[in-house]
Amino acid sequence: MNRLRYAVSLSYEVLDPMADFLLNIEAACTARQTVVSEQLTLPPGLDVDRYTDPVLANRLLRLRAPQGRLAIRYDAVVDIDHHLEDGDKLEEIPVAELPVEVLPYLAPSRYCESDRLMEFASREFGGMQRGYARVYAIREWVRNHVRFLSRSTNERTSAADTVVERTGVCRDFAHLMIALCRALSIPARMSSSLDYGADIRMGAPDFHAVVEIYLSHQWYLLDPSGISIPTGLLRIGTGRDAADIPFAAIFGQVRSDRPLVEIEPLTDAAAGIGMPVFTPKAISTW
Amino acid sequence: MNRLRYAVSLSYEVLDPMADFLLNIEAACTARQTVVSEQLTLPPGLDVDRYTDPVLANRLLRLRAPQGRLAIRYDAVVDIDHHLEDGDKLEEIPVAELPVEVLPYLAPSRYCESDRLMEFASREFGGMQRGYARVYAIREWVRNHVRFLSRSTNERTSAADTVVERTGVCRDFAHLMIALCRALSIPARMSSSLDYGADIRMGAPDFHAVVEIYLSHQWYLLDPSGISIPTGLLRIGTGRDAADIPFAAIFGQVRSDRPLVEIEPLTDAAAGIGMPVFTPKAISTW
Amino acid sequence: MNRLRYAVSLSYEVLDPMADFLLNIEAACTARQTVVSEQLTLPPGLDVDRYTDPVLANRLLRLRAPQGRLAIRYDAVVDIDHHLEDGDKLEEIPVAELPVEVLPYLAPSRYCESDRLMEFASREFGGMQRGYARVYAIREWVRNHVRFLSRSTNERTSAADTVVERTGVCRDFAHLMIALCRALSIPARMSSSLDYGADIRMGAPDFHAVVEIYLSHQWYLLDPSGISIPTGLLRIGTGRDAADIPFAAIFGQVRSDRPLVEIEPLTDAAAGIGMPVFTPKAISTW
Amino acid sequence: MNRLRYAVSLSYEVLDPMADFLLNIEAACTARQTVVSEQLTLPPGLDVDRYTDPVLANRLLRLRAPQGRLAIRYDAVVDIDHHLEDGDKLEEIPVAELPVEVLPYLAPSRYCESDRLMEFASREFGGMQRGYARVYAIREWVRNHVRFLSRSTNERTSAADTVVERTGVCRDFAHLMIALCRALSIPARMSSSLDYGADIRMGAPDFHAVVEIYLSHQWYLLDPSGISIPTGLLRIGTGRDAADIPFAAIFGQVRSDRPLVEIEPLTDAAAGIGMPVFTPKAISTW
Repeated sequence: MNRLRYAVSLSYEVLDPMADFLLNIEAACTARQTVVSEQLTLPPGLDVDRYTDPVLANRLLRLRAPQGRLAIRYDAVVDIDHHLEDGDKLEEIPVAELPVEVLPYLAPSRYCESDRLMEFASREFGGMQRGYARVYAIREWVRNHVRFLSRSTNERTSAADTVVERTGVCRDFAHLMIALCRALSIPARMSSSLDYGADIRMGAPDFHAVVEIYLSHQWYLLDPSGISIPTGLLRIGTGRDAADIPFAAIFGQVRSDRPLVEIEPLTDAAAGIGMPVFTPKAISTW
Repeated sequence: MNRLRYAVSLSYEVLDPMADFLLNIEAACTARQTVVSEQLTLPPGLDVDRYTDPVLANRLLRLRAPQGRLAIRYDAVVDIDHHLEDGDKLEEIPVAELPVEVLPYLAPSRYCESDRLMEFASREFGGMQRGYARVYAIREWVRNHVRFLSRSTNERTSAADTVVERTGVCRDFAHLMIALCRALSIPARMSSSLDYGADIRMGAPDFHAVVEIYLSHQWYLLDPSGISIPTGLLRIGTGRDAADIPFAAIFGQVRSDRPLVEIEPLTDAAAGIGMPVFTPKAISTW
Repeated sequence: MNRLRYAVSLSYEVLDPMADFLLNIEAACTARQTVVSEQLTLPPGLDVDRYTDPVLANRLLRLRAPQGRLAIRYDAVVDIDHHLEDGDKLEEIPVAELPVEVLPYLAPSRYCESDRLMEFASREFGGMQRGYARVYAIREWVRNHVRFLSRSTNERTSAADTVVERTGVCRDFAHLMIALCRALSIPARMSSSLDYGADIRMGAPDFHAVVEIYLSHQWYLLDPSGISIPTGLLRIGTGRDAADIPFAAIFGQVRSDRPLVEIEPLTDAAAGIGMPVFTPKAISTW
Repeated sequence: MNRLRYAVSLSYEVLDPMADFLLNIEAACTARQTVVSEQLTLPPGLDVDRYTDPVLANRLLRLRAPQGRLAIRYDAVVDIDHHLEDGDKLEEIPVAELPVEVLPYLAPSRYCESDRLMEFASREFGGMQRGYARVYAIREWVRNHVRFLSRSTNERTSAADTVVERTGVCRDFAHLMIALCRALSIPARMSSSLDYGADIRMGAPDFHAVVEIYLSHQWYLLDPSGISIPTGLLRIGTGRDAADIPFAAIFGQVRSDRPLVEIEPLTDAAAGIGMPVFTPKAISTW
């Protein structure tokens, strides 16, 4: 088990008389992820509408803020107890046997044009033995054929762009891996997290996009950008791609500062709580 | 009330040893749409897995077919009793008041890149009075700025392509209208139907894509292509865009014939069942 | 007549052992633009290969620089004596009568996908009376439907992107206007210049992309971004689009600083040299 | 030496009162390609304006046809005497040493977005030894990673699309190879020809797009689609990409039939004229 302290500070200036915010910043609560303590700090007098998705565990905050400064902070201590599995045991599930609620993760989505990548995916990975090994080969392909380059892409960049331009940040790596898996009829989706373990030379801690793949009737997590330590990934949101799980969807004219993110391990040898470490095993966080 | 006879015949040749099909061809059952009678004709011995979405009413058929010919036919008689409303009474709902289950229809999707159309939508429609009139103005804009041209687009064409190329078929009109509405924070989605009322000079009856817009806490239906008589629209599927509701998603090597679709009104003066006609009113089919 | 002082300082750090540069920064010499004096300052010992295009008047500098800092400065005093013409007199030339050397400016190019904009251009401008008025209407359409927004686009952005996203900088305005004109069989190309007259609140002086249109067997200049005073435009390069006339094409790993540009009018009342001013007339610089 | 009989029949119906045509269908005349005999058959009374590009040898026909049927036929007997060279001897020319007239073939163009493929080309081919072997490796990569599939693309498809979708016809193979070469600073352009040697199962003879690469101060020809016998390629047009050398650019409403193309070898053992055959050598047709 691992324990992480996570905090995020959001800072905005609302330019319109009112602006609406949909935030997805709180740690998800799942069978393998427990919020030990948490605190949401909002300006006094601001009402918040809360909603938690019963299937995906996304915790949505909806709020309406008046003109002026808006500062929001969320602090949490979270225990994660990822399930580790031997990759050799994990199998792709034929379409005929997929649960109905998994089928949407086969379809193309805003940033994952799997329909355009069928020929490519089939040529490159179609002949491989099915299972975790094939999924891992896709992850390796993406990691080895795309260069991590801050600010080389923007919020409109999709998997098709990344196949052409071969540069991007974590979400671009994730979108491309998701699109390739779906093109092979392997259900794939995105999880938003924090970049635990990322080299600090790459910049301050930040939100981080990773991939979930459905194998052996479980969702398994992979980071095709390779910048994080996956056992330290703390789930915030889950969706088809980045269009489903922005940390902040904003409606109205707003000036945004970059979010300030903190993530650190809290070890406690006596309680058997150590540091997240790399593992060759497949990781499931459900 | 209207009564329609609808039938579709699908014909495939499976080239692989096995192929999986996800079909969405059966008439939806809703408070305003009743299946009077229906029959699904499949090859003997073929198992079908059925699923009906509790919210969207999509009826999914999943089947696995062996190599060789596959013929599927669905026949139905369906009563539709669309709700007609005076457009003046319909209001856009602020994001702060939208039901949580409607929020996904604000996000961009595979074929509706609303994130790229924000400036355009805002310039063209941002200053208009909110409500059905604005939505109808968007519908008119799309109809007047895009040319209906068979085979000018393909299954990869998106709203962004249509803004540039200004030609397309019903699904392209629908994707563009959906994208423009979402860019203005108006929830919008696609419904698949039959092109009841389409000029037979445009070809045989076919599946038809139309738009649903969320106003005054109801989904209202519009056909931006203008080729159908909306009061005669029979709901088959409902989703974010065409990626969610293909009439057939096929996994495996399959040669497909064009589906043969039949749609005709069954009138019964004694029972008060007439022909679908054009109406200036807003139409809701829920 | 107007006289302008123009200077540009380029500053690079070559990271490879050697890097090649193709520069197009010197003022063109044409019948209506005379270089009064000029000076190119290069590091000692650096050889330069010079080439002037006999038709387009582009002056190309080719040089190979070793690892390390590279500073280049060009200073010039230039007289421009633009030809002003009453727009009413300018006619579009039918394809059958265009000089052969003008025909390439009808074809689509890297950033001007006129082939994708045929339907749009034809709908929007096809019915207008031909001539300068139509060209000016296209210029006005672009200026009124695109928002000038620094850093909203990049060097990969094309006219098709701008039709969708409706934001950009001068080159995006120019590419869109060029593409629309070509879609109507009006020859159009790009000229690189300096943004004389631009509001200093928009930033330091900079290179500036404008449009040339072939009318009445002359090339006429328009600035669809509207940020410059066209009578003050000093020609540097001329080509199909930005792909033909980068101020610097660089081959090798190089770190680039932003070019420092100076442009100012030199008035001399005694010699009849005043300030460039706005004119309702059509402007030709050949 | 080889001798080929080439003929093309074009058939149109002009719907407007008048339509303009720019045709590029006549065999080029170069040092290595001699027109033995030729005949252009036009409707009586139709004037033709002719132009031959002094550098590229493109022969342009410009004509204006009135409403109604328009039939054009061109017949030629052409001798080609391609230069064969040992690929090992061919070297890439550094940018610093390229003739000025070759520099435009380094820039991106409508269908060859080399600027977007820099990272990809550099990763895949950047480390290879420079020269014909690298160029041939790019040709092999394109041939092995793209599937030849009639009607899978259209006249708007570009190299960036082909990198994503991996299907296409000859012009798509050519555009991708050109873009990859330019991304590595190797001058590359397109030549239009006839698909001599193509398997008749792929359809009737047709125009064919191939690639020219500048090596050792010569242009060398490669067919990345692999469907032709390159020693039998008869040059029609030469340009940056397909935008420069359509066999017919049409201005006005016209209904077009598919061009009927004939190409066959004329052997004459006594004169030493045999059949074009495959060769492992590099081929130059200038």
